[in-house]
Amino acid sequence: MTYSFVVSIARKPGLSDPEGTTTHKALNDLGFAGVTHVAFGRTISVSLDAVSLDAARTQVEAMCEKLLANPVMETYAIEATP
Amino acid sequence: MTYSFVVSIARKPGLSDPEGTTTHKALNDLGFAGVTHVAFGRTISVSLDAVSLDAARTQVEAMCEKLLANPVMETYAIEATP
Repeated sequence: MTYSFVVSIARKPGLSDPEGTTTHKALNDLGFAGVTHVAFGRTISVSLDAVSLDAARTQVEAMCEKLLANPVMETYAIEATP
Repeated sequence: MTYSFVVSIARKPGLSDPEGTTTHKALNDLGFAGVTHVAFGRTISVSLDAVSLDAARTQVEAMCEKLLANPVMETYAIEATP
């Protein structure tokens, strides 16, 4: 059976987020004066064939550790989607 | 009051996703043979001061149209977060 997941990846707290900082400034320049915080993240949707949801999730965790995320600088969350 | 939102941005269906294609191939090369689909997206967390949740959401929609997303190539979804 095919299972689908969304992996949400964000920088660890305290690390600089130059895209977020630049976008925050650009929003202020465009007139959005009330903006207090902007942060960028990324998502990776993965679909895979596996024998069970648990087996599929274990594989996605291994993908995150090996390739999808950078465990030194990033945190990730794995969510199953219908 | 400060309201927080997460904007999820994805390429419109049918547009090429070179990061997804390359990552799909890399996962196969790493031994994850069951992977059937990989797609990349991005998220932008925005916090802003506004008089109400509705007013805040209207501002975030305007930010998406003006700066955060590319309406020609991308779709976006805005979700309020606690």
